[in-house]
Amino acid sequence: MATIIHDIDEMRRRADSIRASGQRIGLVPTMGALHDGHLSLVRIARERTDAVITTVFVNPTQFGQGEDFERYPRDLARDLALATAAGTEILFAPKPAAMYPAAYRTFVNVEGLTDVLEGAVRPGHFRGVTTVVSKLFMITKPHIAVFGQKDAQQTAVIRRMVRDLNFDITVVVAPIVREKDGLAMSSRNVYLTAEQRREAPVIHRSLLLAEEVLRSGERDASAVRKRMGELIARDSSGITDYVSVADAESLREIDFCSPGESLLVSLAVRFGTTRLIDNTTITL
Amino acid sequence: MATIIHDIDEMRRRADSIRASGQRIGLVPTMGALHDGHLSLVRIARERTDAVITTVFVNPTQFGQGEDFERYPRDLARDLALATAAGTEILFAPKPAAMYPAAYRTFVNVEGLTDVLEGAVRPGHFRGVTTVVSKLFMITKPHIAVFGQKDAQQTAVIRRMVRDLNFDITVVVAPIVREKDGLAMSSRNVYLTAEQRREAPVIHRSLLLAEEVLRSGERDASAVRKRMGELIARDSSGITDYVSVADAESLREIDFCSPGESLLVSLAVRFGTTRLIDNTTITL
Repeated sequence: MATIIHDIDEMRRRADSIRASGQRIGLVPTMGALHDGHLSLVRIARERTDAVITTVFVNPTQFGQGEDFERYPRDLARDLALATAAGTEILFAPKPAAMYPAAYRTFVNVEGLTDVLEGAVRPGHFRGVTTVVSKLFMITKPHIAVFGQKDAQQTAVIRRMVRDLNFDITVVVAPIVREKDGLAMSSRNVYLTAEQRREAPVIHRSLLLAEEVLRSGERDASAVRKRMGELIARDSSGITDYVSVADAESLREIDFCSPGESLLVSLAVRFGTTRLIDNTTITL
Repeated sequence: MATIIHDIDEMRRRADSIRASGQRIGLVPTMGALHDGHLSLVRIARERTDAVITTVFVNPTQFGQGEDFERYPRDLARDLALATAAGTEILFAPKPAAMYPAAYRTFVNVEGLTDVLEGAVRPGHFRGVTTVVSKLFMITKPHIAVFGQKDAQQTAVIRRMVRDLNFDITVVVAPIVREKDGLAMSSRNVYLTAEQRREAPVIHRSLLLAEEVLRSGERDASAVRKRMGELIARDSSGITDYVSVADAESLREIDFCSPGESLLVSLAVRFGTTRLIDNTTITL
């Protein structure tokens, strides 16, 4: 079984001693409630490094008022077993009060990239993400860190942060892992009712539709967004938060798709109180 | 002579190899125009570590509109000679375009501590300081970093940042170095006319007055501020930006000084277009 570490200083000493022995560290930051998507990240880290540290921390600073911080699923024993089986050597699960003591005041912010898409709907979310990821980087001292493409904007923001702040860490982005019916794996899928669960794969189908429409010659991004929105409305009870066709690096919405341009097609859909996101990257 | 390194990746590799050889790195971040104050920091770093990296970088992001970024004194050859003599092994002088490439978007901010005193007069200043210091930490990978008490708020902000973001670096704060007449050493002193230079030691005398007044029993902080301001006005042509008697940790202005409380008495005075700061810490 992987070693569980809760204490920040102990984690730091352990990371130092792994590095001192010449081994390479791979980090997989998670909020727990591990599913096959997370485990794919652990396996990738395991292939590329000698010691995988999986972190489990439901980070309060990335949840907004009224979001699901309190009810976010937590099951450390299960996470430990799954993370171990996938190749984790250390599971680091710090306490919120140790990560954010009373006098805490410091935040890392990637400006611009974070006020669109998820950031527009969840103000402050990415400031919480970049802050906690910075802290986890400092504490676990990884050579590489693996993130999932499911959170496409998050990976763009973290890549930018790593470059900008000169973190000496290689960011690896792993493909989305899906259920058999196409629904992207997410810790939030457990919130869905049976009926919502049946409907939710429409999110993935809307991405396949976007790809098909673009490949068949449509260049007007607003037409693509419209087709996706119509499909969601027709085939489900989901409420679309946004549908985006954006430049994959700047995350700016585009009007017309140019050949060679890398596009991030993404959306967020609410089923009742459960909010799901998904995306695909397309280069025409 | 110390090695000059301009390239970020080369500095990083060099820091890695120093660390790999088991040596300890001491960092002294400066904006150049080195004086005896800076050199005292280099000597302290030299005493405590095996390899001192002195950085010289006039950081654009910590200067506001209309401040002295353009005319800030620069003389790398002189800095190299002085830094070497004081015990520097590597002088790291990166280019602004390498530190802040066109797509740069990430900033580190210590909230609360940075909107008073210097931060109130220089909005955005500390955001620039904490950002560049974070970057320099990442690039030079020091075990300890030495800062001067002259920039009292800066040291409080950096200590907070290091704790909050879990930088594995010991922050050492070195005492203010003064000219014979008491004027705190500063790269900006060269801006002073002969007349202003004669008057400027009144800043230090106002701090000595504050100490005397407090030691003789005055507990009303506003009375202390008033006495300091009156002295500056009476003995010089300087314009007082602020006079502060604050809690040394929270930097909040206090009304009454309590026994045992650690006070930061600080002020900023403008002589023509030259703005000077100074401070002292007093525990009653």
